[in-house]
Amino acid sequence: MNTRFPERKPAPRWRRRKDTRPAEILAAALEIFGERGYDATRLEDVGRRAGCTKGTVFLYYESKSELFKAAVREAMLPQLRETEKLVDEHRGGARELLESLLRMRWDHMERTRLSGLVRLLLTETGKYPELARFYNEEFIDKNQTLLRRVIQKGVDGGEFRAVDVAQAARVVVSPLLFAAVWRHSFDQVVPAPVPLELYFETSIQIMLAGLATSNVHQTV
Amino acid sequence: MNTRFPERKPAPRWRRRKDTRPAEILAAALEIFGERGYDATRLEDVGRRAGCTKGTVFLYYESKSELFKAAVREAMLPQLRETEKLVDEHRGGARELLESLLRMRWDHMERTRLSGLVRLLLTETGKYPELARFYNEEFIDKNQTLLRRVIQKGVDGGEFRAVDVAQAARVVVSPLLFAAVWRHSFDQVVPAPVPLELYFETSIQIMLAGLATSNVHQTV
Repeated sequence: MNTRFPERKPAPRWRRRKDTRPAEILAAALEIFGERGYDATRLEDVGRRAGCTKGTVFLYYESKSELFKAAVREAMLPQLRETEKLVDEHRGGARELLESLLRMRWDHMERTRLSGLVRLLLTETGKYPELARFYNEEFIDKNQTLLRRVIQKGVDGGEFRAVDVAQAARVVVSPLLFAAVWRHSFDQVVPAPVPLELYFETSIQIMLAGLATSNVHQTV
Repeated sequence: MNTRFPERKPAPRWRRRKDTRPAEILAAALEIFGERGYDATRLEDVGRRAGCTKGTVFLYYESKSELFKAAVREAMLPQLRETEKLVDEHRGGARELLESLLRMRWDHMERTRLSGLVRLLLTETGKYPELARFYNEEFIDKNQTLLRRVIQKGVDGGEFRAVDVAQAARVVVSPLLFAAVWRHSFDQVVPAPVPLELYFETSIQIMLAGLATSNVHQTV
């Protein structure tokens, strides 16, 4: 799926050298949505940061919600594809695959500028059911499907205990969500910041041992 | 600590039968903060729901943030005390105590009307560092201290593996936070709601097995 260009408008103008391209508009949109939230983002500011006018933004995206969805797809689809590739191509055990998948998700959160987006989704989707539905259908649900596949593989192969697979898929990612919430709300005010890498490593240990059929021979 | 009455003003008026009492104002404040969020809560609306004027609200609470803190203390302190009592008085093993503590926290979330408050803390404390600091110092930090005590007891007694105790205390509560976020943002838009009781039971299984020195003899 090509998200770099809008589907509805053929937009031949992008071929002209000096025009602002959709990709630049989307990058600017993602930054500003992340910094200010959905409500406070204005299309003129997105245009200004992308080096064009509000009119040019509207040329490509019919509304703020269309711009938002396009920017989220631009940011999230490559990550989803990378995760799908990992699961499809993995040849080892389920435990190893689950660990790789969780590390990949963590890396995606840490190395991209998506913490602002996570904050937006946590704080504003309650007000905008359409955005919540979009995000759930296109990303959460697909990521959960991958996690269920991996956990089911572990249960079927005897590596994991007979847990409820759908709920376990939610439990194993909940520490990542905690980290995003913490960074947004509390990290700025506590005297000593949470050592997030150590937190993440601890969560990996607990989740893997918690799913394993036997953890007696594991080192910690 | 008595939070039912403000510390700064002696407020003898609460003795008069027909006056609105602080407790009624706090109950109304908690409801309205939970429903509308911090920004959108107006003191006149709190007064109206409590059956008094904005002036009466100001008689007891100097500002919106003072009212907010008093309402949160009124709601959260009994829960914190109950959790402290559980930990102080428990005589069995650490695993059993941790399970009881997590179930108590879950019950607190489920049976009270605090999910609106959790949403507020997640969504608005980023804008109000003072509220984040207050909540962290008076509740998160105290609850984390209790959890660390329980996990350390398990590590010292050989029931739990040698995890990083401070980070493990954060990991074990992260599924509860996920549930609050989900209920706020996504539950309204998904075709099939998450079965939260099953989710919680699955998280308890994974956390307890993940911390245990050995889980080979456990049934699932």
